[in-house]
Amino acid sequence: MVQRGLLIVLSGPSGVGKGTVRKAIFKEDGVDFRYSISATTRKPRPGEVNGQDYFFVTREEFEDKIQNGDMLEYAEYVNNYYGTPRSFIEETLASGHDVFLEIDVQGALQVKTKMPEGVYIFLTPPDLKNLRSRLVGRGTDSAEVIEKRVAAAKDELKMMINYNYAVENDVVSKAVDRIKAIITAERLRVTRVLGELDN
Amino acid sequence: MVQRGLLIVLSGPSGVGKGTVRKAIFKEDGVDFRYSISATTRKPRPGEVNGQDYFFVTREEFEDKIQNGDMLEYAEYVNNYYGTPRSFIEETLASGHDVFLEIDVQGALQVKTKMPEGVYIFLTPPDLKNLRSRLVGRGTDSAEVIEKRVAAAKDELKMMINYNYAVENDVVSKAVDRIKAIITAERLRVTRVLGELDN
Repeated sequence: MVQRGLLIVLSGPSGVGKGTVRKAIFKEDGVDFRYSISATTRKPRPGEVNGQDYFFVTREEFEDKIQNGDMLEYAEYVNNYYGTPRSFIEETLASGHDVFLEIDVQGALQVKTKMPEGVYIFLTPPDLKNLRSRLVGRGTDSAEVIEKRVAAAKDELKMMINYNYAVENDVVSKAVDRIKAIITAERLRVTRVLGELDN
Repeated sequence: MVQRGLLIVLSGPSGVGKGTVRKAIFKEDGVDFRYSISATTRKPRPGEVNGQDYFFVTREEFEDKIQNGDMLEYAEYVNNYYGTPRSFIEETLASGHDVFLEIDVQGALQVKTKMPEGVYIFLTPPDLKNLRSRLVGRGTDSAEVIEKRVAAAKDELKMMINYNYAVENDVVSKAVDRIKAIITAERLRVTRVLGELDN
């Protein structure tokens, strides 16, 4: 029996460094994740390959997929749809490969409602912890500025609660090590191990 | 604010190698777990130190602790009580130290009902996975023997379901690495991280 792959979803506020961390993880030894391939209704650009860069579909096909529940998440930009097809991810996981999805916070929440068994990782900026005490201690910001920054951090925390793990992106290599440990641990979770046992 | 320590409970069937794995983990760099110290009503042996080898208490004190709910688990052997005092573990966790508890399956289940926030790791023998197919493939055991071994393995699986993680003890150093990854990941769980943020 093939061990089902893990769906790993990396998200977080814009500017936190999701893309940098994702690229660093893909370069690691022993890591063999598959990217999730998006579907889109926009026309392929020269050199883009269907099923590799994107699944290029018509507007009608895309809307059918939405209706069928085959879009884990989608959004419309400049009159074109972009989305994450569930069927591709399901087939990849069933074949025993892990799928890595780097996605914004809105998209991650949509995916989670449909595939709650995934591993949802929230990448946080390095200065979230003890923010207020540090700002106060530094003594350079007015009380008003401190409260604004703390309020902004609180908004980020509200999103974090929908995730399984919070990984601080202080140093990229450390963030990568943390994510690798999370993936090792998730494979050992009893709920997943029991699913694999054929006894 | 001190980050609360983790309670790590390592358990599993007798003979699986819990003690060996525990000793190997304590030798690792960067590992600074505290042992849980048991309470007992038996008399100290020469050289044994109260609060270090055991908490030596009277029968009446032990029974008071049971009544107060201060015994996470206990058992009676040869007319003496042995048990795990909750107060010591609570104080150690509150001071920011991780507590490592190596314990049999009965004890682990008792502890879990009282401290479900702990990390419960079930150490499994290396031959649990695909047991039936491997026994059949080997062709050396009768169908009856195979079914007996599979039935015994199923009994072990029934216990596993009460744990968070299942770690195969195929090679001690690998089991240690898996447990270290679990602990790294558990520290990153959103439920724990949110508890630490003071914003």
